[in-house]
Amino acid sequence: MDKINRHPERSMLERSRLDEVLDAAAVGTLATVVDGMPWAVPMLYARDGDRIILHGSTGAGALRQVAAGAPAALCVAMLDGIVVADNLFNSSANYRSAVVRGHLTALTRDESADALNALSDALIPGRSAEVRGHTKKELAATLTIALPITAGGWTVKVRNAPPSAPSGDGGAWAGVVPLRTVAGTPIPAPWVDGDTPVPASVLRLAHSGYVTAIAPA
Amino acid sequence: MDKINRHPERSMLERSRLDEVLDAAAVGTLATVVDGMPWAVPMLYARDGDRIILHGSTGAGALRQVAAGAPAALCVAMLDGIVVADNLFNSSANYRSAVVRGHLTALTRDESADALNALSDALIPGRSAEVRGHTKKELAATLTIALPITAGGWTVKVRNAPPSAPSGDGGAWAGVVPLRTVAGTPIPAPWVDGDTPVPASVLRLAHSGYVTAIAPA
Repeated sequence: MDKINRHPERSMLERSRLDEVLDAAAVGTLATVVDGMPWAVPMLYARDGDRIILHGSTGAGALRQVAAGAPAALCVAMLDGIVVADNLFNSSANYRSAVVRGHLTALTRDESADALNALSDALIPGRSAEVRGHTKKELAATLTIALPITAGGWTVKVRNAPPSAPSGDGGAWAGVVPLRTVAGTPIPAPWVDGDTPVPASVLRLAHSGYVTAIAPA
Repeated sequence: MDKINRHPERSMLERSRLDEVLDAAAVGTLATVVDGMPWAVPMLYARDGDRIILHGSTGAGALRQVAAGAPAALCVAMLDGIVVADNLFNSSANYRSAVVRGHLTALTRDESADALNALSDALIPGRSAEVRGHTKKELAATLTIALPITAGGWTVKVRNAPPSAPSGDGGAWAGVVPLRTVAGTPIPAPWVDGDTPVPASVLRLAHSGYVTAIAPA
């Protein structure tokens, strides 16, 4: 992560590895250029086949400005472990990361409904089938954006290993402190009765390894 | 997170809130502009007073190109919960996010040693005091970069709430699935003897809430 364009062994060239990384996370940073300056904002996203779905409010001026054809990069990173060497120089991090580069396109209102369902189901699998459909008013208030995944338009880097060999005699401790993100017990909204059944999609999500960390090799 | 320049109630104006968000995470996305195009890469970072420390290899061409004076934005986001409304439109996410905008400066070799210690201690508190100092060779191979935190140069947004009021009669379940990131049992490197003592800094880190999620209000 700290050595850009370095460590070619950390680069993954198979498209399936890109999908694995993108599908394991839910938040990325969308970066683009506005008036020659870098513009970056965290966004929920989902991969839907060969595109990435993003959304925001049609009232969000900056997003509207970048939605139509602007060159953009979506950057996703998960920190999977702190790599502790016997010195700071060889200490590192285990991670999975992806950058997808391309041009943003705003979806039409008709295209948005399916894309928003895909986005929702990526966050909470199966949720879109449990609730009513989008209303026209909701779709009119939502700006749905796609970033196509194209050949040569993405980079995946993964580090999943112990520290490199010891700099000393190997007598000092070295290793990895693994990190993982887990979902906890659902917390009902204040107005929800205690005997209201929790939706199946939410039950599946609860106590899952939401962003599944990988074990060091 | 999905409504940029919207939801002013989610914006935090106190500098202390920025520090809280920055100090709770360890990975951000550094965005800048290279040849007019967006350039984004995930990086380990640490806040050190009024600056953010980043580092990479001096062999990383792109990083060297942006290190001296380029306008940049560092974006940090933590997903703290999935907010489940009784419809998709009002579903959301709880999160903490920050964007710091400014101009990158490359540190001198002398300045780098302290900055790298600060970076290391942010990842593993107390670690720099347990290991030998940086060698000249290591410092020569490391590009250390600072991004100053200036008044007006940052934005913090936090959502930490249940879903908005129900769109129906309130009879359907709605609530939050909390997410948190935890550190697990340290995994020794293959060459480390089983009876080698684990450093105090690593023991403190293990089983901690590494990136501490906040409970919904």
